[in-house]
Amino acid sequence: MAMQHEVRDPVHNFILFDDFEKRLIDSEPLQRLKHIKQLALTCEVYPGATHTRFEHSLGTMELATQAFDTIVRKEPDALKKLGWSGPDESACRQVLRIGALLHDIGHAPFSHAPQDLLPTEYKGHESFSEAFIRSHYIRPLLRRGPRNCDPDQVVAIALGPERKPQEDASLQLLQEIVAGDLGADRMDYLVRDALYTGATAGRFDYHRLLNTLTVIEHPITGSPVLALEAGGLHAAEGLLLARYFMFLQVYFHDVRRIYDVHLLDFLSAYLPEGRFPRDLDRYIVYTDETVHAAIVKSASETGDLAEVASRLVGRRHYRLAKEITSQAKAKDPGIFEKVSDRLRSRFQDRVRTDEVGKKPHTLEPGKLYIDRDDDTPEDIWLASKLIRSLEPVWFGRIYARCDVREEVRKACDEFLKEEGEPS
Amino acid sequence: MAMQHEVRDPVHNFILFDDFEKRLIDSEPLQRLKHIKQLALTCEVYPGATHTRFEHSLGTMELATQAFDTIVRKEPDALKKLGWSGPDESACRQVLRIGALLHDIGHAPFSHAPQDLLPTEYKGHESFSEAFIRSHYIRPLLRRGPRNCDPDQVVAIALGPERKPQEDASLQLLQEIVAGDLGADRMDYLVRDALYTGATAGRFDYHRLLNTLTVIEHPITGSPVLALEAGGLHAAEGLLLARYFMFLQVYFHDVRRIYDVHLLDFLSAYLPEGRFPRDLDRYIVYTDETVHAAIVKSASETGDLAEVASRLVGRRHYRLAKEITSQAKAKDPGIFEKVSDRLRSRFQDRVRTDEVGKKPHTLEPGKLYIDRDDDTPEDIWLASKLIRSLEPVWFGRIYARCDVREEVRKACDEFLKEEGEPS
Amino acid sequence: MAMQHEVRDPVHNFILFDDFEKRLIDSEPLQRLKHIKQLALTCEVYPGATHTRFEHSLGTMELATQAFDTIVRKEPDALKKLGWSGPDESACRQVLRIGALLHDIGHAPFSHAPQDLLPTEYKGHESFSEAFIRSHYIRPLLRRGPRNCDPDQVVAIALGPERKPQEDASLQLLQEIVAGDLGADRMDYLVRDALYTGATAGRFDYHRLLNTLTVIEHPITGSPVLALEAGGLHAAEGLLLARYFMFLQVYFHDVRRIYDVHLLDFLSAYLPEGRFPRDLDRYIVYTDETVHAAIVKSASETGDLAEVASRLVGRRHYRLAKEITSQAKAKDPGIFEKVSDRLRSRFQDRVRTDEVGKKPHTLEPGKLYIDRDDDTPEDIWLASKLIRSLEPVWFGRIYARCDVREEVRKACDEFLKEEGEPS
Amino acid sequence: MAMQHEVRDPVHNFILFDDFEKRLIDSEPLQRLKHIKQLALTCEVYPGATHTRFEHSLGTMELATQAFDTIVRKEPDALKKLGWSGPDESACRQVLRIGALLHDIGHAPFSHAPQDLLPTEYKGHESFSEAFIRSHYIRPLLRRGPRNCDPDQVVAIALGPERKPQEDASLQLLQEIVAGDLGADRMDYLVRDALYTGATAGRFDYHRLLNTLTVIEHPITGSPVLALEAGGLHAAEGLLLARYFMFLQVYFHDVRRIYDVHLLDFLSAYLPEGRFPRDLDRYIVYTDETVHAAIVKSASETGDLAEVASRLVGRRHYRLAKEITSQAKAKDPGIFEKVSDRLRSRFQDRVRTDEVGKKPHTLEPGKLYIDRDDDTPEDIWLASKLIRSLEPVWFGRIYARCDVREEVRKACDEFLKEEGEPS
Repeated sequence: MAMQHEVRDPVHNFILFDDFEKRLIDSEPLQRLKHIKQLALTCEVYPGATHTRFEHSLGTMELATQAFDTIVRKEPDALKKLGWSGPDESACRQVLRIGALLHDIGHAPFSHAPQDLLPTEYKGHESFSEAFIRSHYIRPLLRRGPRNCDPDQVVAIALGPERKPQEDASLQLLQEIVAGDLGADRMDYLVRDALYTGATAGRFDYHRLLNTLTVIEHPITGSPVLALEAGGLHAAEGLLLARYFMFLQVYFHDVRRIYDVHLLDFLSAYLPEGRFPRDLDRYIVYTDETVHAAIVKSASETGDLAEVASRLVGRRHYRLAKEITSQAKAKDPGIFEKVSDRLRSRFQDRVRTDEVGKKPHTLEPGKLYIDRDDDTPEDIWLASKLIRSLEPVWFGRIYARCDVREEVRKACDEFLKEEGEPS
Repeated sequence: MAMQHEVRDPVHNFILFDDFEKRLIDSEPLQRLKHIKQLALTCEVYPGATHTRFEHSLGTMELATQAFDTIVRKEPDALKKLGWSGPDESACRQVLRIGALLHDIGHAPFSHAPQDLLPTEYKGHESFSEAFIRSHYIRPLLRRGPRNCDPDQVVAIALGPERKPQEDASLQLLQEIVAGDLGADRMDYLVRDALYTGATAGRFDYHRLLNTLTVIEHPITGSPVLALEAGGLHAAEGLLLARYFMFLQVYFHDVRRIYDVHLLDFLSAYLPEGRFPRDLDRYIVYTDETVHAAIVKSASETGDLAEVASRLVGRRHYRLAKEITSQAKAKDPGIFEKVSDRLRSRFQDRVRTDEVGKKPHTLEPGKLYIDRDDDTPEDIWLASKLIRSLEPVWFGRIYARCDVREEVRKACDEFLKEEGEPS
Repeated sequence: MAMQHEVRDPVHNFILFDDFEKRLIDSEPLQRLKHIKQLALTCEVYPGATHTRFEHSLGTMELATQAFDTIVRKEPDALKKLGWSGPDESACRQVLRIGALLHDIGHAPFSHAPQDLLPTEYKGHESFSEAFIRSHYIRPLLRRGPRNCDPDQVVAIALGPERKPQEDASLQLLQEIVAGDLGADRMDYLVRDALYTGATAGRFDYHRLLNTLTVIEHPITGSPVLALEAGGLHAAEGLLLARYFMFLQVYFHDVRRIYDVHLLDFLSAYLPEGRFPRDLDRYIVYTDETVHAAIVKSASETGDLAEVASRLVGRRHYRLAKEITSQAKAKDPGIFEKVSDRLRSRFQDRVRTDEVGKKPHTLEPGKLYIDRDDDTPEDIWLASKLIRSLEPVWFGRIYARCDVREEVRKACDEFLKEEGEPS
Repeated sequence: MAMQHEVRDPVHNFILFDDFEKRLIDSEPLQRLKHIKQLALTCEVYPGATHTRFEHSLGTMELATQAFDTIVRKEPDALKKLGWSGPDESACRQVLRIGALLHDIGHAPFSHAPQDLLPTEYKGHESFSEAFIRSHYIRPLLRRGPRNCDPDQVVAIALGPERKPQEDASLQLLQEIVAGDLGADRMDYLVRDALYTGATAGRFDYHRLLNTLTVIEHPITGSPVLALEAGGLHAAEGLLLARYFMFLQVYFHDVRRIYDVHLLDFLSAYLPEGRFPRDLDRYIVYTDETVHAAIVKSASETGDLAEVASRLVGRRHYRLAKEITSQAKAKDPGIFEKVSDRLRSRFQDRVRTDEVGKKPHTLEPGKLYIDRDDDTPEDIWLASKLIRSLEPVWFGRIYARCDVREEVRKACDEFLKEEGEPS
């Protein structure tokens, strides 16, 4: 089918798509992503960061396609080797594109902030994504496509290998292309977030990375897996470092985090029964904008909710009083919790605490290889000291209401001292 | 005062400001601009265009400062010549920065769309800007600044020469720097809109333009005015062409315009008495987000407002049925109105019409000069055939509900024929 | 054949090519282009402009391919309609790529400066290009390609429609793609020159332009021709304006032009019989670098050649004494020649004159159309007032040796006055 | 003095300079840098890499100035604290700019390749730089400047702390700004090389790095030293990583290195007595272009020199036959030399070997600190595991003439086996 539609994108220039894809893009759940910012309230710190999950979904589809095309260009028999059981290559490419396009379709407002407010049995926004794909919103559109587009396959690709492990080697590859450590999702959000925040540390050489993707036989299992040509090693390191820097400078910025905390406070008080509804027709109306409007309304009223809401408007957020160092955490893993408990019992809701940790990647020995031409593939884990040296990011922070900031800081130092820590 | 604060900007890298300016930036009316997009619903066409009036306000302050510094660098006595009556150069620079920062402070939601819904005696959002500057929100902050920052001067600079004509040559210059045909406001929005939409046609050589600004004696009046060094002529042409292209490709894009029409329909039905309130404390709560939340809520209900609201969600906007050509308009200036009236009387609210025109600039003979060193300054109007050849942009469009689009198109062709126009 | 080779390019990221193309790229005449700068001595004015014809040749091949692929993507039957008589589409694409790659293969050192020093019967460097393509350097390589690559076709595409007019519609299209007013050659050099000089005025929206190329039936002749979709009109205007600005700011910069004049002086004294040799084996050793080395050597010696050479090193070029205005030229077309003659007879070799003119494009009514879907194609000439308003660029300049600059200027003013011109 | 001159730069937009600086820029030794490429024959691998030491010299001056201005903006008393003994701040800024501008003035052709061919008592091209600064070419110009510009200070700043250690704290700081691990020289070449090669891995957030430079008291010695604000840590890591990647991908690219080897072969045979002359008037004529012309001439002749020269034209360079791994080197530090010796004695001049190593930076404990506001400064060595984990880069390569490549590879494997190494 002709790629007769196009949209202009600040990152990828023109993104093309066909009639079938346009119907999915125009569907209500995908249009809703125009109202969910990629980085929640990060724009309170980096004002340019107003971009949405919608653009990112298109960009992920585009990069996944470029990755697929590179692999097939280098190894025209790649799909056959992978045992792709679908009708043909174009069907495989199609399901990859749709899986990439829909991978964030179930996202909650304000991105990752309110993970804890999902319906109890849900483990992440991905459960909503699966629900949408299987629902009346999307399923009928998939069925009316020009090629067989199996909802199970779309779900598998959209949700990724951790949530939907697959037996089939070709599906595993498609999952890796979209959601792997070097996948299209990650490539797109890093480059896009770097552009919109202006934090250029998030840029990396994704053109080279894309250009060096290939498929090899796993040296241990023998099954075909995604790999890198030798020239791609440093581009892969570049991606992981870019992500690492973005965690430190943007995603875990201290002001951005306290906004997330206040948001969570507000939502758990505001949402019926303190949770997002499981029903899709009710869930779909929650966007950054509808929640923001509720915050503004609440802030102008009185009562407890007003108090919570007011912190989110006019920069009245709590201020950082103290950061627990990761050295302190290393010596005493429970230190943050102990100090937090004591501060909360003394200052109640005038203090808020936030502990957050993240592995820099999920690479490990045996997972990703570098194609060494006629030689044995080299494990990227062994090849790159840089990758091995990237440590988990961890922050433990105490925030306080402006008027008690100094008091909280002093109390915190005192507690740390009592716990045997240098302040 | 030390420029001890900074914000990262995708266009200008780092924007620096001091404590005094920070208090203004953190004020409620300026923070509100974070929730007013620069380009209203343009993001329905160019998904990247999610940037806000807040960023643009900072960017305008930055570029106005760069322009000022260039002029003073070249002509250290520039202010003396201009008869600046304030205490010193740094006070002049300060009031310029504040005027630029606050120039959009009173903007209505969705930018220019709802100009007609302002309070009756108001002629534009600038009246709200003046009101905010003189209000309890801003005036006390201005008074507490380190330098004399006269609210009248701030208003004059923020509102520009057309709305607040000045006698004083130095104030005229500051107005021109912010709001002139080649002013900081225009430079910033063009470059910013080009970045976020991806429509690179909006880029121009603003570095060169800034670098060639200077002050000369007007060859006729003899009073000091902003001018360009010879090297800046093509950069100035570049700006005007960039703006011209952006009008054609972005600002007057047919889908963007129908969204504005639907927005206006919704707001005039939704706002109490069909207008924004004059009271600032009530006005301030209207942002893109609070209005969008109202649209979403209305769309899920029933009744007339629901009907209007539903056009704004899920891409259910009216479709372009016919564009009246500017040739037809030239032959019969009333053609668009005549045809529109007849279509509206036949199709009622299943049809919407939109006529929009814009001069490409306000340059005219005697207004802007090129500094020819020891020679007489040359009027840019005479120097540039390109500038003279830029014609007003005009669009007359008929939109129709999807189901009657063909019918409307045919009726339109028929009416045009009856009016003596080729369809 | 697999595109197994790649080269990194600052403009297009990765440029891919196959084994056959690599042999051509590695050939001596193409490698020689690494030593011929794209913009001759422009780097004396814009120091970054050190890029070469080699990069530009690769870039032209890349953009021509993108243009071709766009056309075929939109209209899979395009080649059939065009009556392509070659074996298949991939052969057509191949010959296009090779023609684009080799289009500058015969370039003289210092680009266009020494056009007058070519062998007498040669009309431009293109004659050398044809000679190289048909020579032992290239012809055997073409023959050993995987597909039929006819040297006549390669020559036709490389030399373009003006020098090698074709009957065959498909060859005409390929020529237009490479060498037309909106062709790959022009697109690449504008974007590349803008990047390396830093003169951002040369940028334009070439992504959009490429994306809107299509093939239609010529409304008058009925034969298939290259055309633009409606969305490409402004991008095409943007290209022509970018080129216009580059002529004014870069290509015809007054200091760059006098360097060309001095170069010509040097070469006509230095080359045996004052001309480049027709023999390819002797011609091939002339590059910017071998000529530059000769200049440096001459400048350190004594005699007439030393005098000429010394102007080219250490910024001892002649200085602009006077520019004849195009108004003066319009009133009296012979004015520049008359004044030049008189100055030369008074100042001899202490004065140099340079007259240069250029049409902004070769568009004219009936040449390029906009595809209006089901409607009649619209002549771009009628559609764009901007294009019609672009005037030829003309410069008439008098340069003088530093020590007599003022004297020359005065004499020039005096002569102009005597000729009835205001100075 | 007014900054009345400007040059356009692809990296920094406009670089401004005054009359005094213009005289230095126009001097013969600095103009000569227009003919010395920044990256020697890297353009054989990355065709865009044609930029010169001239541009880089201007860029280093610009960035050094930005660094200086940032420091003084934050700490207006910085120079006083540093005990600057010169007349005033502007004189300090002036000598910094001149030192930065002239830091590469003595560079040999083809950059670092022919270090071994300098006059015997010279330790690097810096000795030529010092000689030029003290010579009749530059010294008289320095004396005629508007401010006291001491040649000793200029030499100290241009040559840097390792070659010209200083007692004076203010001079130490100026040296650090230009030539330190995070100095302007390094910032400029990384960003510039990344732009021209297209190897985007060389980009890093230099805007942030510049913005976080400051001066603190060294926590041990108590003397004022350059330091980073906390926000600059990751930008500094970014710079070091960018440099690390550029070493791997560009500077030590295997094809680029063999060109350096061939160049050295040619020059040592070509230069009188196998060395560059110490006499400046004779040295100054050696540029990339004059040497290249000599290569082309030699290659067209016969004899030994012709053989050597011919490898440098037409891509007839030796090919990589084998890379010794750094693991092998770690096990047996002499392995590369042993194998090389044996290969050379078997294959003579049909084989060439190249061993190259580089520390990623010269940081070590106690050298650079992060300003922690009221807290003790933190040693960047302790703060950054990434910096500590960057290992020296090492390559040991065997190249062979095309026709014996396979034979050499086999011999090499055999020798490695005999030395107890896995091949």
